[in-house]
Parts: sequence; C-alpha cells; structure tokens
Amino acid sequence: MAQRSQPVTSVGKMRCISCRDEYLASDAGTCKECYEEASETEEELKREIEDLKSKISFLTWLSPVDDHHRPSSVLSFTDVVLVATDDQSPPVPAHKAILVSRSPVFKAMLESEMEESRSGTIKISDVSYNVLRSFVHYLYTAEATLDENMALDLLVLAERYQVKHLKAYCEQFMTSKVNGENALISFAFANQHNAKHLMEASLSMVMDNMDKLTKQDEYKELVEKDPRLVVGIYEAYLSKQVNTAAVATEYL
Amino acid sequence: MAQRSQPVTSVGKMRCISCRDEYLASDAGTCKECYEEASETEEELKREIEDLKSKISFLTWLSPVDDHHRPSSVLSFTDVVLVATDDQSPPVPAHKAILVSRSPVFKAMLESEMEESRSGTIKISDVSYNVLRSFVHYLYTAEATLDENMALDLLVLAERYQVKHLKAYCEQFMTSKVNGENALISFAFANQHNAKHLMEASLSMVMDNMDKLTKQDEYKELVEKDPRLVVGIYEAYLSKQVNTAAVATEYL
Repeated sequence: MAQRSQPVTSVGKMRCISCRDEYLASDAGTCKECYEEASETEEELKREIEDLKSKISFLTWLSPVDDHHRPSSVLSFTDVVLVATDDQSPPVPAHKAILVSRSPVFKAMLESEMEESRSGTIKISDVSYNVLRSFVHYLYTAEATLDENMALDLLVLAERYQVKHLKAYCEQFMTSKVNGENALISFAFANQHNAKHLMEASLSMVMDNMDKLTKQDEYKELVEKDPRLVVGIYEAYLSKQVNTAAVATEYL
Repeated sequence: MAQRSQPVTSVGKMRCISCRDEYLASDAGTCKECYEEASETEEELKREIEDLKSKISFLTWLSPVDDHHRPSSVLSFTDVVLVATDDQSPPVPAHKAILVSRSPVFKAMLESEMEESRSGTIKISDVSYNVLRSFVHYLYTAEATLDENMALDLLVLAERYQVKHLKAYCEQFMTSKVNGENALISFAFANQHNAKHLMEASLSMVMDNMDKLTKQDEYKELVEKDPRLVVGIYEAYLSKQVNTAAVATEYL
C-alpha cells in the first residue's frame, strides 16, 4: 500500500496511456507528446482511407458481370462483346470506352480499323468463360475473387492485354501462396510471364528445399523443357552458398 | 557525470523512442510494446493508402475534359454531348454509360425514351461552360479544382443531378471557407440546398457574430426574402443562451 501511494517515478513504474498497464522505465516507449502526435496521425490516416474508399465507390462501375458470375442487369449502352472462343459460351458484353481506358492492347485494337473494331466482337482464345467474365469484371471494379487457378489464368490474360494493375494483383496473391510443394512450378511460371516478385519468392523457396529438388517430377520436366532455367537455379544456389561462406569467414 | 552513468529510472528520466528526447515519468506516454504496435499499425495504414490510391488510378477515367479545361484527345466512343444553354459554347462530349453510372437523374433520362436519349444531346440551363466542363470532369475522375464560386455552382449542379459524392466534396470545401463575413449567405445557401454540415458550421459562425448581424446588408435582404429562416437563427441563438445559462447555474 505504501508503495502505491508514492509517485510512480520513485518505484520506476509508469502506466501506459494506451494499454493502461504498468511498465518499468526500461520498457518505456514514447513520451506523452509523441503518443498524442501518433494518435492524431493514426486518426488522419484513417480519415484519408475513408475518403479514398468513398472515391473508389464513386469511381467503380457497376460491372456488366457481377461477382457471382450471373448476368447483371447493368448492361446500359454496351457496344462490344468479348467471346471465349474455346467453349460454346455466351458473349460477355462491355463498353469499348472501358476496355480502351484499361488496356493499351484493347485501345490499339478498338481505335484502329481492325476487324474487332468493325464487328464489335473481340475473340479471346485459350481462356474459359469463367475466367473471361472475371477479367471483364475486374476491368470495371478492380476486384476479383481469386483462387490459385484463377490467379494464374487472370495473370496470363492481364499480361496479354497489358492490364498492369490486375497482373500485380494476381502476382501478389500467388506470391502469398508459394510453398515447398509448388515453388518450382511457380518459379517456372513467373519466369515465363515476367513476374519478378513471384520469381524471387519462389526461387528463394526452391533454394530452401534444395534437398528435395531433384526428386520432384516437375524438376525432371523442367530440365527437359527449359534446362537454362534449371541452370539459373543452381547458379543462384551456388552464389548464395559462396556469400554465406564469406559472411561466416568474416565472423571467424 | 555520476548521474549520467546511473540507470535512467533512478533519476526519473527516460528517452522517448520516437523523438529521442529525455522526458520525466510524469510526461510518459506509452510502453515499448504499445509503441511498436502503433508503429506497425501506421505502416499498415500507409500501405493500405498506397493500395487504395493505385486502385483509384486504375479506376479513374481519362476525362474528355482535362484539368485545364482544354479539349482532351480522349474522346473515344463518346455517344452523348452536354450543352450549356446559357452561352454560345461548344458541346461537351461524354459517354452515356458514365453519366448513367454516376447520376440517377441521367440514368432515368438516358435509359428512357426521353428527348435526350433520342437526340444524344443533354441541354443544361443556368450553368456556364466552365462549370459544366468541371462537372463532367468530376464524373470521370472524382476531382475538381475549386474556388468559392466553383464550389457553389458545382454544388447546385450536383444536387440537381443527384451526384452525392460531388455535393459532399463541394460542401466540405465551402464549410472550410465559412467566416464572419460570409456566414449569413452561406447559411441561407446551405438551407436552400439542403447542405447540413455547411448549415451547422455557418449557423454557428452567425451566432458567434450576433452583434454584427443586423448591420449587414445580407441580413436585410434575408429578412425580406426568407423571414422564417431569420426567425430560425434567433431561435437557435435563444436556445443556446438558455442552455449556456443552465450550465452556468449548475456550476454555481
């Protein structure tokens, strides 16, 4: 009781303004002024986020393809359709102005006298109806529901039509899913589609599992298909070992 | 020197992790753990802001009217023009799909068999060419360069075409500009256009300057034009005085 009534300083304990717990001087964080400043900054950042979200909601189009891939009623003034040529699926309606604004490839296609511009039909090969709908939905809303396959397919499409924002979005998702099992496939995929972050993350994961590398079926396939890429893995591994050894020597 | 070599606790001083200054226990803010958590939160919020900004930049259309009100080259596939009927100005081109997506009034107009839908021309009265261009620019980009007059004109237009986001944007700007000089006009304007925040801010400013109220020309005009609104000011003032008196009595 006597201790409690003494000023906090004399027992070296203070009460944290944020969590309300007592702490020792050795666990001190900030002074009051900096705490208040930080709280204000946080409030300001949160307000900015609210403003940006409201701006996004204003700018987002109602997509002619909705989240659940059902036909949407928002088809006002569409003037072009996209068709997946691989299956007998219905055309996906869209606005030329949106396609042109989102993709330099569509821009070149639709603003010239190309076949697509005249017919109002854009044929897209090597893509399923579902992926095409997700692609169009993203062009209107900057949103997509991803799983590993969808991310892979959309990244390929985003690269083909130079929709950078979507490519980065898929790449970020795929990078978060890299593991010991899929690292080699991811690395080969990233290399093929020039996805730098995914390439780094998967190469790093491959190198963390070098003992299992040659036992994988995918490894044998890759040696067959793209031996140079496999050489790249070994070179990176060797360079990492040399660096590690150099650092270790420094500390000897 | 002896003091310096002692642990910080014994002299009751600590060093702030954030500003690096020494402080006394009585000026303590947070513990270390909470400081680190707050820093992480700040980093996360900043990352979120970056993501949102990149999304906005993807979703923003190149406007057919650029910031400096020069004709823009981005006029692909426009299918409607807006015309300010008050002056002999050129039509402002736009996309029906954009107008419909941003304004329920344009939606009703263009999706029905109204004159505007058939002719592809929307006539807008009581608006200058410059204001109309800024209005259209905002529909594409959620951005406008405001001064007091532009904010006022755009708010009126935003209300007429039910573009809530723009109305809120103008109202926020006008609220930040309320002062003793313009409070009465702002209050009358806000009342006429149902701008609640601006109404509150300007009423509060009017009440802070009650001694000058009846001396203003605008006051006489308002009594002439809308005496009920002036009664509203007096009622609010009286109610505030009564409340202030009640609080004062409580502390007696």
